[in-house]
Amino acid sequence: MIQASICTIGDEILIGQVVDTNSSNISLVLNEIGVKVARMTSIGDDRGDIIGTLSEELRDNDIVIVTGGLGPTKDDITKNALAELSGSTAFKTDERQLEIIHNLLSARGLDILDINIAQASVPDTCEVIPNHLGTAPIMVFRFDEARFGHKATLYSLPGVPFEAIGALPDIVDDIKSHNSLSDIYHRTLMTYGVAESALAKMIEKWEDSLPEDMHLAYLPNPLTGVRLRLSIYGGRKEDAVKRIDTEIASLKDILGDIIYSEMDDTLESCIGRILAENGKTLATAESCTGGTISALITSIAGSSAYFLGSVTSYANSVKTGVLGVPEEIISRYGAVSSECVAAMAEGVRKLTGSDYSVATSGIAGPGGGSAEKPVGLVWIGVSSEKGTETFSAVFKSNRKRNIERFASTALNYLRVKIANELK
Amino acid sequence: MIQASICTIGDEILIGQVVDTNSSNISLVLNEIGVKVARMTSIGDDRGDIIGTLSEELRDNDIVIVTGGLGPTKDDITKNALAELSGSTAFKTDERQLEIIHNLLSARGLDILDINIAQASVPDTCEVIPNHLGTAPIMVFRFDEARFGHKATLYSLPGVPFEAIGALPDIVDDIKSHNSLSDIYHRTLMTYGVAESALAKMIEKWEDSLPEDMHLAYLPNPLTGVRLRLSIYGGRKEDAVKRIDTEIASLKDILGDIIYSEMDDTLESCIGRILAENGKTLATAESCTGGTISALITSIAGSSAYFLGSVTSYANSVKTGVLGVPEEIISRYGAVSSECVAAMAEGVRKLTGSDYSVATSGIAGPGGGSAEKPVGLVWIGVSSEKGTETFSAVFKSNRKRNIERFASTALNYLRVKIANELK
Repeated sequence: MIQASICTIGDEILIGQVVDTNSSNISLVLNEIGVKVARMTSIGDDRGDIIGTLSEELRDNDIVIVTGGLGPTKDDITKNALAELSGSTAFKTDERQLEIIHNLLSARGLDILDINIAQASVPDTCEVIPNHLGTAPIMVFRFDEARFGHKATLYSLPGVPFEAIGALPDIVDDIKSHNSLSDIYHRTLMTYGVAESALAKMIEKWEDSLPEDMHLAYLPNPLTGVRLRLSIYGGRKEDAVKRIDTEIASLKDILGDIIYSEMDDTLESCIGRILAENGKTLATAESCTGGTISALITSIAGSSAYFLGSVTSYANSVKTGVLGVPEEIISRYGAVSSECVAAMAEGVRKLTGSDYSVATSGIAGPGGGSAEKPVGLVWIGVSSEKGTETFSAVFKSNRKRNIERFASTALNYLRVKIANELK
Repeated sequence: MIQASICTIGDEILIGQVVDTNSSNISLVLNEIGVKVARMTSIGDDRGDIIGTLSEELRDNDIVIVTGGLGPTKDDITKNALAELSGSTAFKTDERQLEIIHNLLSARGLDILDINIAQASVPDTCEVIPNHLGTAPIMVFRFDEARFGHKATLYSLPGVPFEAIGALPDIVDDIKSHNSLSDIYHRTLMTYGVAESALAKMIEKWEDSLPEDMHLAYLPNPLTGVRLRLSIYGGRKEDAVKRIDTEIASLKDILGDIIYSEMDDTLESCIGRILAENGKTLATAESCTGGTISALITSIAGSSAYFLGSVTSYANSVKTGVLGVPEEIISRYGAVSSECVAAMAEGVRKLTGSDYSVATSGIAGPGGGSAEKPVGLVWIGVSSEKGTETFSAVFKSNRKRNIERFASTALNYLRVKIANELK
């Protein structure tokens, strides 16, 4: 198996100023094409350290992917280190990157300085892949067997996360065209509401009976649930697709509506798609989630087509005055109750005229709980013209995580209701 | 200077399933006490790799901090590797950790299995610091000069982020008691609204005139602004505090209300503090930010004391019907206008009875812009009984980042208004 190492360069990572997300994004993509990531390293902007570390990683791996250390002010250290490492004695200017630099800066109304022009200058030992999203070019250094005992390739990417991510399709193409990777086919299923360990138990028999060349990966995320990825290594594409289809069909029989999507999806994008397809609208009424559900829904581009709005009713006076929750409900059952979230969900539908609504009321903590209504308790209401249902759940985490779980659990109940009524 | 290396162990990091945040949190704390982090490495759950990498890091550094690889199912690999590395031939049970394991599991209503009990068993070459937040103990291995050419200490921490963070005070105490670190005193100032490079230009003269033993660090964050940390190395504490006070006073003269706090703070916690101290209340009316401001405000524990609620008016019908924005304003000036956010801010104050309000309307993108009102434009309104003001700004990022910037810019205008009127 082709083996890779990822190396991020930058003092800002070592002093804890920046969390390195590039390594994780790169390794996700490499794993998808069947390249194993053996190690990730972060080092500072130090020429000796850069040369020493990269030499070692090139000796131990087929591919080394470097990010960072290429900003206009730091340029020299990394580029000179790569020049020395690759035995370059001269620099060349990449005209394509120079044009991109001119275009990017003039679009921002900025003057082009010498340090900007210098970014298009690279060691003459590398191939350049233009970076259309930023000023620093992507550099590819190929080393023959004489150097590290085996063929090795070093890719140098910009450190800005969205530029690094933008470079990955080109890197993947280059890796594929220079290595004989076995074909891998993937299918993704998004699930919500069952923890990884419980999910594994539910599908244990099915998983154990998978053929040897199929592999199942669990990728859990507190907000989007557990992503299941079924992969098949090698073989003809049509056969692989057919075989994966068969296995997925059995899996869907077991999991039912625990599965919410067969794409790489989130609960809010899935809800948005169903609503948009059916021309239906949504509103939310939030207490303990404080606007988090509304913010998740509107994080999706185009959500204005189906999302009307939301009321965060943190004070009881807003629950009664704006959402029309009867005062008697609050005095009799409390604001954190099935009755209250039902009235909130119905109230916001009436207020906005939406087809669907979701409401939350709970105790995020750290204070405010009681024996009967502990910290971590949430009531959720979902409503449509077909009726209103309520649910409760208890989570035992800190305030931030509790609010996140409240919101994603509410989105999941909404998703199930919408899917059942509209499909 | 004492030098450290941070090493995270776990296949889940190498396949990109989990983003490593422990390294960043640990390095922040180490930097604060004057320990330099030279390298961060992530490796898989592989005994040979663990021993090889840790040996190298112990050879090159005074301190090595390891996180992860200690879950009940993976336990053996890391612990056996650490036993081998430290020349241990027997394990011992730490009774304090065993008691914690019993308490934690019974509180969750779980049976105690053999694999749980095994977590309290550690190589007899280590000292144990009990982990009160989880089942895996913190292990400290001390190596003498004969082994790596200098004294070296390895700390093994659990991988669960909140357990790792929870262990850091004990680790810091241990490092301080075993090393002669020079004393460092820090002061933090939170700023918002001026980019790092522009801020550096504003305070260039002041910074250049700082005495040699004082150091200024810029820690930028898109949501909370640029944090400035002024540190002084060595000397008597009273002198250091007095000298820092003097420098901070000059800095405040230059920056004025760009500084929003002298604590490690966020805009929303700062706003909450001022409101609570003055017994004033707040409501928000959001269009483009979709509930993000409301969610930030309510992320603060105790926010129900001053936050009444919010209306996300995504559809114009909610702007007019719920917030009472006159239809004429929308038809004449558009929903993204000074007039509209002023009416939204005043409308939500009237609706909820709050003392203060903030409103947003803008174009987050990717679609929807025009030459006159481009993608990235936001209008912000802030209102109190003393009057309503509006502001506009343009950001050029993707939808997610634009929404974040809209929200934090709005919070900053609100913060300035509240601070001016209440202090």
